[in-house]
Amino acid sequence: MIVIPIILAGGAGTRLWPLSRDDKPKQFHNLSGRGSLLEETIQRLLPLEPERIIIVTSERHERLSYKEMNKFKIPGTVLAEPRPRNTAAAILYASLYLRKLYDDLIMISLPADHHIKNNAEFVRILRLAVTEAEHGRLVTIGIKPTYPETGYGYIKAGKGAGPVLEIDSFVEKPDMERAREYFESGKYYWNSGIFIWKTSLLLKQYDILLPDHVKAFQPLAGLPASEIASNDGRAGEIKKKIFNSVDPVSIDYGILEKAINRVVIPGDFGWTDLGSWKSIDDIVPSDKNNNRSPESDRTIFLNSNNCSVFTENRRVSVVGLSNIVVVEAGDEILVIDKDSSQEVKKIVEMINR
Amino acid sequence: MIVIPIILAGGAGTRLWPLSRDDKPKQFHNLSGRGSLLEETIQRLLPLEPERIIIVTSERHERLSYKEMNKFKIPGTVLAEPRPRNTAAAILYASLYLRKLYDDLIMISLPADHHIKNNAEFVRILRLAVTEAEHGRLVTIGIKPTYPETGYGYIKAGKGAGPVLEIDSFVEKPDMERAREYFESGKYYWNSGIFIWKTSLLLKQYDILLPDHVKAFQPLAGLPASEIASNDGRAGEIKKKIFNSVDPVSIDYGILEKAINRVVIPGDFGWTDLGSWKSIDDIVPSDKNNNRSPESDRTIFLNSNNCSVFTENRRVSVVGLSNIVVVEAGDEILVIDKDSSQEVKKIVEMINR
Repeated sequence: MIVIPIILAGGAGTRLWPLSRDDKPKQFHNLSGRGSLLEETIQRLLPLEPERIIIVTSERHERLSYKEMNKFKIPGTVLAEPRPRNTAAAILYASLYLRKLYDDLIMISLPADHHIKNNAEFVRILRLAVTEAEHGRLVTIGIKPTYPETGYGYIKAGKGAGPVLEIDSFVEKPDMERAREYFESGKYYWNSGIFIWKTSLLLKQYDILLPDHVKAFQPLAGLPASEIASNDGRAGEIKKKIFNSVDPVSIDYGILEKAINRVVIPGDFGWTDLGSWKSIDDIVPSDKNNNRSPESDRTIFLNSNNCSVFTENRRVSVVGLSNIVVVEAGDEILVIDKDSSQEVKKIVEMINR
Repeated sequence: MIVIPIILAGGAGTRLWPLSRDDKPKQFHNLSGRGSLLEETIQRLLPLEPERIIIVTSERHERLSYKEMNKFKIPGTVLAEPRPRNTAAAILYASLYLRKLYDDLIMISLPADHHIKNNAEFVRILRLAVTEAEHGRLVTIGIKPTYPETGYGYIKAGKGAGPVLEIDSFVEKPDMERAREYFESGKYYWNSGIFIWKTSLLLKQYDILLPDHVKAFQPLAGLPASEIASNDGRAGEIKKKIFNSVDPVSIDYGILEKAINRVVIPGDFGWTDLGSWKSIDDIVPSDKNNNRSPESDRTIFLNSNNCSVFTENRRVSVVGLSNIVVVEAGDEILVIDKDSSQEVKKIVEMINR
């Protein structure tokens, strides 16, 4: 069966402000020095020989998405949302579009802001997942925790041996005590947000578990594929109505927590969710004092260690400091304790008020 | 006798980089929000009703100096040095110029980068110093130490009672142990670099103690006042020769350490040498968390304390940090531990290499 990745690139990436901003969120930035996060995401899927690439993003970032997609030779479509309504809406939108083009297919749904160190292993796991999906299962990839992280959701594995396990339950972000329990138990995996399934099977789940979504999308489902992908005229109007009304439910909560025949495949391929400045350290090489900067010719570290600098235009000098992140982008400069990375959202809120 | 201040404004202010730069050193910046340091220096001398103001600076900063001086109604002259050769040369230059205009006068020589909290007390002490100078003494102002500072030179007081003391000796910047001894002894004062004397008496000291300086300046001394103050033609050539050859000696070392009839008047008027980013805290009001920024509308502090931000153009957000200074100026951003303020020079050296 043909394989088509659905890359979810609609996030605002607020926690990577000020580099990640409304007009250019993090997935369009070259944080690693090897290409934008979106570009890297497409690149690492190529060994699966996808028939086509789908990117779901906001209308505002349609052009940026096409620009990244057009770096590759495979055909692709950018599906633009008038406003973000979480993953259940985004994935349903993509599924309805694809159903017009193909009888059935294996869909790999994944976010555009992950970093993966071992691409070969990632591809090996995905191939396994595609086989499982072909056998009629809803497959998720669970990441073997390497430390007790409180910022991720977890998947508790149930019965099973070998590389494919049943899912016992989905678990919200834990506090530190629970995170330690999960980590030590060996039964919990980080929820990567990577899902693999047949579109036909998925749409059946929507019918059962999210009938309001299906109803809301009905007017769009009746149009031809080219119109479904359009932002103009009739389709544009319909899309606006849908995305203004539909509940902002995640696919995890809306479908996976309640579905049957779901499995988790544990993966161990050096995965990072690039959700905060601290996490970006994983993709930038460090010097002997553990300082990092992708723009090393514009950064000076003196008597400093474990500091990171991201600078768009100006030179940054860091003197006598430890464990801080400095970000210069546009008219904004952020200087933050690395362990306060999660507070960036608050700054953005303060500025927007 | 008439009083004329000689303001020494030739410093590069490297330790206040990147705000203070070759093209506009610190004395021309409005750090306090109340005017440039040079402007504030002139302002606080006005109660002494000076006959004229003299500013000695580098050729490069002649225009900037006139701009500051012209904010006031009193006449003034900017004497431009082709290159900096320390205070003995600068003060001799000013003395030779003034001798052409006046039979004799009381000269108040002082740097342009001090902050003084209590101006009335400053003026009271200077009036006392002027009287002492009229009686034929070389007067220095010693600052009562408020803590054991290792970054200043000290003056050890000798015999004397009341507000005027003999000088036992000048002491180099001490280590911390010595600084504590000095502080506790009550006999040591910070060397403020503020000197008051008759020009006629000073020139006699040069004849005795710095004859090579006098010899070097001889060709200039023969010219009329207007030429002495000029950078062009004959005077310009002569000045270049002088400032290329004369020893870069400080007036403290060259004259005061060896002269007789020198006295120190202790002053207690909230004096700060604005020599490092840490010291700038003294002139910027703080919020309830001890954070400071003269540009508070462009600065955000979140979960931070004892931090200072100086920003020329961009917004700076500081999150989860203590005791740091952030400076944004031109194409440079400096982020520094407050107690590493003295390291700024090293950064400038690294960049210049």
